[in-house]
Amino acid sequence: MNFCTSCGNPVALKIPEGDDRERYVCTHCGMIHYTNPRVIVGCVPEYEGKVLLCKRAIEPRKNFWTLPAGFMENGETTPEGAARETWEEAKARVSNLQLYRLFDVPYISQVYMFYRCSVDNGEFGVGPESLETDLYAEDQIPWGEIAFPVVKETLREYFRDVEAGHFPVRVSSVQRDSWRK
Amino acid sequence: MNFCTSCGNPVALKIPEGDDRERYVCTHCGMIHYTNPRVIVGCVPEYEGKVLLCKRAIEPRKNFWTLPAGFMENGETTPEGAARETWEEAKARVSNLQLYRLFDVPYISQVYMFYRCSVDNGEFGVGPESLETDLYAEDQIPWGEIAFPVVKETLREYFRDVEAGHFPVRVSSVQRDSWRK
Ligand SMILES: [Zn+2]
Ligand SMILES: [Zn+2]
Repeated sequence: MNFCTSCGNPVALKIPEGDDRERYVCTHCGMIHYTNPRVIVGCVPEYEGKVLLCKRAIEPRKNFWTLPAGFMENGETTPEGAARETWEEAKARVSNLQLYRLFDVPYISQVYMFYRCSVDNGEFGVGPESLETDLYAEDQIPWGEIAFPVVKETLREYFRDVEAGHFPVRVSSVQRDSWRK
Repeated sequence: MNFCTSCGNPVALKIPEGDDRERYVCTHCGMIHYTNPRVIVGCVPEYEGKVLLCKRAIEPRKNFWTLPAGFMENGETTPEGAARETWEEAKARVSNLQLYRLFDVPYISQVYMFYRCSVDNGEFGVGPESLETDLYAEDQIPWGEIAFPVVKETLREYFRDVEAGHFPVRVSSVQRDSWRK
């Protein structure tokens, strides 16, 4: 960040009075520019024991499989955002969203939230950010081609929870060195 | 937002190619400026059946009671942020944080997350944003002087859950007209 969003003059990093960390403060109008973590919302969309996955059409991890997910937008709730992403990426309408998995990724200041849900009528398609989409049973999932560790972990836990018949909400954090290609 | 954070030239609202909503786009360098919801993290700090509350020293809702909570910062996890806020506002160290309550507040693009936790050794103090702090049993809580509806709802549910002996993670959203003074 170089310039003030309000007046267009240069900003400088300093600790505002009463604060305890550096912020971008405008050298002209004094406006303090806070930056905060971003939320990624997604779904574990289920239909008849299978989970809906999307093959990514875009980088990063193009050609790898993921759960539908993306940045939460202003003016929506977390389940609304998760459902919107599922519509955009897999053209599936989903119902009965239940919070299932939260990952903190502090080194990139992100919070991932996945909702379990059911795919209405088992219908889905292919959105512009996907190359293909499909419903997968546990033993069909392309485990070696999953795009992101948080997706793989969520899927593994999900199928274990299906077997156990209950779905506790789990929270954990991802460290930088745990992300492996 | 008036000016580009990167080059200092004016921004204009338009829909970037491939997007479906207006963003602030720089008229000079083309940078797209996304704004996203902010996360507020807080605690329900418990000690010997009582909950730690803070009387607010600052607006909004100065002189009203709240659970320790505040904006999540970059580089921290949600439980780390919740514990940090509890230290800052009530000078209490907390342990065993368990995700408990999530509120979406879409009309101001905020997500509240509260963690249950225990107050180490029952020790607490008064941080700069608080006028006083104290541990309250259910029948001692100043129910008429709670700062925010999400705090009141979380406290009511918490004491019901204590009685029931289990603490499901709940998610709901707050509509504009449900916020009453
Ligand atoms: Zn300025
Ligand atoms: Zn620019």
